[in-house]
Amino acid sequence: MNVSQRTITPIAWVNGRVRFLDQTRLPSEIVYRETEDELFLAEAIKRLAIRAAPLIGIAAAYGLVLAMNKLTREDLPARRSAFDRAYALLASTRPTAVNLFWALNRMCRTFQKYEHLPIESLQELLLAEARAIHDEDASMCERISVLGAALLPVGAAVLTHCNTGRLATGGKGTALGILETAWEQNKIKHVYIDETRPLLQGSRLTAWELSTLGIPATLIVDSAAGFLMQRGLVDAVLVGADRIVANGDVANKIGTYSLALLARHHHLPFYVAAPATTIDFSLTSGASIPIEQRQATELFWLFDNDTPAAEVDCYNPAFDVTPHELISALITDVAVIESPTPERMLTIRTRLETERTRAETSR
Amino acid sequence: MNVSQRTITPIAWVNGRVRFLDQTRLPSEIVYRETEDELFLAEAIKRLAIRAAPLIGIAAAYGLVLAMNKLTREDLPARRSAFDRAYALLASTRPTAVNLFWALNRMCRTFQKYEHLPIESLQELLLAEARAIHDEDASMCERISVLGAALLPVGAAVLTHCNTGRLATGGKGTALGILETAWEQNKIKHVYIDETRPLLQGSRLTAWELSTLGIPATLIVDSAAGFLMQRGLVDAVLVGADRIVANGDVANKIGTYSLALLARHHHLPFYVAAPATTIDFSLTSGASIPIEQRQATELFWLFDNDTPAAEVDCYNPAFDVTPHELISALITDVAVIESPTPERMLTIRTRLETERTRAETSR
Repeated sequence: MNVSQRTITPIAWVNGRVRFLDQTRLPSEIVYRETEDELFLAEAIKRLAIRAAPLIGIAAAYGLVLAMNKLTREDLPARRSAFDRAYALLASTRPTAVNLFWALNRMCRTFQKYEHLPIESLQELLLAEARAIHDEDASMCERISVLGAALLPVGAAVLTHCNTGRLATGGKGTALGILETAWEQNKIKHVYIDETRPLLQGSRLTAWELSTLGIPATLIVDSAAGFLMQRGLVDAVLVGADRIVANGDVANKIGTYSLALLARHHHLPFYVAAPATTIDFSLTSGASIPIEQRQATELFWLFDNDTPAAEVDCYNPAFDVTPHELISALITDVAVIESPTPERMLTIRTRLETERTRAETSR
Repeated sequence: MNVSQRTITPIAWVNGRVRFLDQTRLPSEIVYRETEDELFLAEAIKRLAIRAAPLIGIAAAYGLVLAMNKLTREDLPARRSAFDRAYALLASTRPTAVNLFWALNRMCRTFQKYEHLPIESLQELLLAEARAIHDEDASMCERISVLGAALLPVGAAVLTHCNTGRLATGGKGTALGILETAWEQNKIKHVYIDETRPLLQGSRLTAWELSTLGIPATLIVDSAAGFLMQRGLVDAVLVGADRIVANGDVANKIGTYSLALLARHHHLPFYVAAPATTIDFSLTSGASIPIEQRQATELFWLFDNDTPAAEVDCYNPAFDVTPHELISALITDVAVIESPTPERMLTIRTRLETERTRAETSR
């Protein structure tokens, strides 16, 4: 692979179409797909060609634009029904990441505000909003990276899980963005990457991203994390999040909870990095987060199809929930919340509400 | 796969040859191999065609027989040098499982006792000793199974890791032997199987064994164990061991330590089942156990060979060490040691020494 990962964008709006990298083919092949069809895009999200909470939100926003761009000059009821259909389609792709719903709702507010305008204007304003969601995600990544890098000690060996970099966001990433920034600050000694079963986002995506960035990294099986900590090889654990709730509990890729427990046992800091858009203040505890159950075939995708083991019953939750008590700090673009509690989470909520009020006042 | 697993023996002495099941091919293919060559057998152990602590011990004993059977009527120095060469060869196959060294040393004592006899007698007596090691392992499995099943509550959902059944021993298995016996006693509601990366002994071997036994089982990725415990789906964790040391610390398949920590956090019993031959009283703590580091390629054996990710540095320890403080009970054929401590481990040591003295006196 000679393509620099820095030159690769996982999603882009190109001449009225959505162009995206099919992440299921990485790292063996770099396959881009283009579509004008929100159905095709929704399928791509479902099958993880487009994946990771921030990127799903961006993709869903563009999906609504695609759907509305099919309209010519329909009346208001037809516009509304087209929007609602596309909204429902995109909302049904993945249940756990809340950025998806956040992005869809933001597009919905834009639609409601401008639904009476001429169709071309409505379409342009929706595209502008989707682009804004995309651009803002890149800025959020920058802020997260700077705030997070400040927490890491010089010479840190950091363990990470799943993929949280350029392939996962509209920018440089969340947890991986922090590692990139900390690396540029000469703070990173080494990164250990969990391979992240079943779909191996660690070995397929994160290993590739870190190698193109020139950051020294070593791949391990997920269950070797404890061994590394026992041997004193890890100084901190740093992961992303798919949904954070009001008390600070975090849903993230399956296996995150075990890492948090191992980190606590070994007195290592356990950091979670995510944009504030990942926070769902409507849920009071992680127990209420819907956890996506994925197909059993994901456990066997690397096997021959005729493997008898494939007849075995499988249970394949895509995420788990880490209680806030195990988290050393939540690193968001809005604030760093150390040892999150329901009370401390209010800092972010208040700041978000202040910003929203200020934005609405200035309009 | 229509072959009943009960009809399959992982190793056997057949007409002057060792016949073994190539476990790297399971469950897709049932491939038996036969050899008269201890070099071929040693290679089979190294590449995990023959695997698991008890089975490795049995195989190594047969390996010494193969080596000595090549001799015709050499003098004592030639016999000794042939024995020592084969001993060194077999001892170098795998470093962590102590059954290997236990079996080799037992064969060594037999050799030293009878080395002056006519070569045919020496060969017969060595074979008899290897067969005894094999048969005794089956009896040990039976005792472990009965003692362990008594610990499990009725209606238990048990999580297990790696493979510890008929494919791993000379009998019905250790942890899986317990599950089989408990199942026959109507005590087992369900078994959850960790797939056990990197080599998937759980999905390839344990899933197959349990399905042929008709025990309801569900496969999970290793890092989903915590999620299952969070949801209250698991009542106990039950694993095998590759080496147990004098204070009760246990080396077992990578990931065992995380399971023990998760079990403790969720107030679930964590049981380790192994023959007393797995105990190495010469080491005082688990920190001294040599941990086998295996090839990076094991993390990629399911990938295409040209996967760029395969260029990533990998760290692949095959085992980890679980401190005795996290173990609810060690289940051996000699005794069950609840909450093992260095003092409680002496029970087994004393009993083993008494048995040895009795055996030597009765000769």
